[in-house]
Amino acid sequence: MTTKVILDLDTGIDDALALAYALGSPELEVIGITGTYGNVLVETGVRNTLAILELFGRSDIPVYAGLPHARRRDSFEVLEISEFIHGINGIGETVLPEPVVQAEEGDAVEFLVAAVREHGEDLVIVPTGPSTTIAAAIEADDHFAEHARIVMMGGALAVPGNVRPWAEANVNQDPEATDLLFRRAQDVTMIGLDVTLQTLLTTEETAVWRELGTAGGDFLADAADYYIRAYETTAPNLGGCGLHDPLAVAVAVDPSLVTCLDINLKVDLAGETRGRTIGDHDRLNDPVKTAHVAVAVDVERFLAEFMQRLTSLAEKTRATEPAAAPMARR
Amino acid sequence: MTTKVILDLDTGIDDALALAYALGSPELEVIGITGTYGNVLVETGVRNTLAILELFGRSDIPVYAGLPHARRRDSFEVLEISEFIHGINGIGETVLPEPVVQAEEGDAVEFLVAAVREHGEDLVIVPTGPSTTIAAAIEADDHFAEHARIVMMGGALAVPGNVRPWAEANVNQDPEATDLLFRRAQDVTMIGLDVTLQTLLTTEETAVWRELGTAGGDFLADAADYYIRAYETTAPNLGGCGLHDPLAVAVAVDPSLVTCLDINLKVDLAGETRGRTIGDHDRLNDPVKTAHVAVAVDVERFLAEFMQRLTSLAEKTRATEPAAAPMARR
Repeated sequence: MTTKVILDLDTGIDDALALAYALGSPELEVIGITGTYGNVLVETGVRNTLAILELFGRSDIPVYAGLPHARRRDSFEVLEISEFIHGINGIGETVLPEPVVQAEEGDAVEFLVAAVREHGEDLVIVPTGPSTTIAAAIEADDHFAEHARIVMMGGALAVPGNVRPWAEANVNQDPEATDLLFRRAQDVTMIGLDVTLQTLLTTEETAVWRELGTAGGDFLADAADYYIRAYETTAPNLGGCGLHDPLAVAVAVDPSLVTCLDINLKVDLAGETRGRTIGDHDRLNDPVKTAHVAVAVDVERFLAEFMQRLTSLAEKTRATEPAAAPMARR
Repeated sequence: MTTKVILDLDTGIDDALALAYALGSPELEVIGITGTYGNVLVETGVRNTLAILELFGRSDIPVYAGLPHARRRDSFEVLEISEFIHGINGIGETVLPEPVVQAEEGDAVEFLVAAVREHGEDLVIVPTGPSTTIAAAIEADDHFAEHARIVMMGGALAVPGNVRPWAEANVNQDPEATDLLFRRAQDVTMIGLDVTLQTLLTTEETAVWRELGTAGGDFLADAADYYIRAYETTAPNLGGCGLHDPLAVAVAVDPSLVTCLDINLKVDLAGETRGRTIGDHDRLNDPVKTAHVAVAVDVERFLAEFMQRLTSLAEKTRATEPAAAPMARR
């Protein structure tokens, strides 16, 4: 019995790793991908998603472009820090062939709403970027708010944020959207910096992918190495890069990887701490808790699952030309 | 086998309830009390502590005056909001006889340091006010920092603060002291607003004490009712008053009342969120976690323990004169 999943990605390097995790998980059936803005523009993210699906031979999965900017804004521009971390093209300047298959013409919000109506609690939605498109689905249909099972990457509860001392990047892009999600969605698992900064990837692991001598292995290794190098500058104390988005997918496969605190959440929208994810004082003693915040993670088991899934996925892609392989491997 | 305990109180109404909880707990041997500022001036708090000890026939317990103001300040003045919540005299304008026994002449910091040297891990220290005196003990003796078992009331991790949206009152009085405590003390259990705002007392319970017709019952009922009335103004959504300080004492008796998140903590000292208790990014992946933050509490069991202990303590105090009792009870 597989779990159906929709990923809502701003594809980005760790989004690419999250997508690979999902494709490499026999427990999951990816029934579609919606594209949001954040690490990149919506169109760049959608293009990256399509190219990665093609690389891994999964162009059968439909991709929908979601909303292009935050609820309270008219447009979106990629932040300099995002370009530094993910590269201008969002995937660490790796070069993938222009995808043959195009994005669906349908509406991402309608696709999400219809999918929850059709599959109910057999479906998990994994947003790894700003909450804009998911919030629109909540507003479009009460059934979505009540029945969508959401495992999101975003927020920071018991640790500082990464764009401000109190704000995490995804939530910070559209605080109103995440606040609406926390207040109205009935089943939200939050995979935030509390746990994702504990799950570190180093060049020791990416070397395994490079050794495969396949197009998939090269892509994963090159993109992840770019991300690891950025982390050496932005968070030198960590000694690796955080596996933010892949951990959310991993928890969709196996919730036992994390320990959660059940709590009702909100996002601070006004004042000095705008963008902070925090317990909702007004629902503190409400016995129904709609959010489940991961506060501990089995790092070793997750990393083992991560490497096994991505490596076996990359193994099956076409071999790279001998000319591209390093001398030592000939 | 009893646990030795030292309370560090800014006696205040909920401090008074915490002291009563300790005196009513056969599992605890209160070997001394140190007085800090916060809800009241040090001298007011010490006077209240001595008067309450006398009321409950425990003037054998030594009381030491601790440091009178925060590390970075020259003086301390009681905040208006503290006077509103605890009354000008700190105990809800209840009138207790001027205590016969005086405070010890010795130094509170030396008393704390010597007690940990003598009793080691058989001793629990329960601070319920600003961390100033405890921080001084940490600085005075590395042995104290390494061996003191501390169960403190203070801070707010996954919920907003109570004096600022990010700061809890005790930590806010002396952020540098609490930060030093979090960074250097090796065994700190934090009982913060995350759990204490879930433990509510109402006039339904205080009526039980009033019914006893004893001096102790009247004092507890009058003081707690004052506190409950203040909460009706400051936090009308709660429907009662938070049992902040008593919960810390209860956890010193029985740690199983709460579920803790193991984490390394710091206090924000600079920037917009000065006074916030939050995970220490630099020690996020350190396998040794020095703090244990209560994030869930067995409310029902705690309230039952609280009522049983305080009621049986108050029962044993002298009966009030018939003239003071309400008509209905004659």
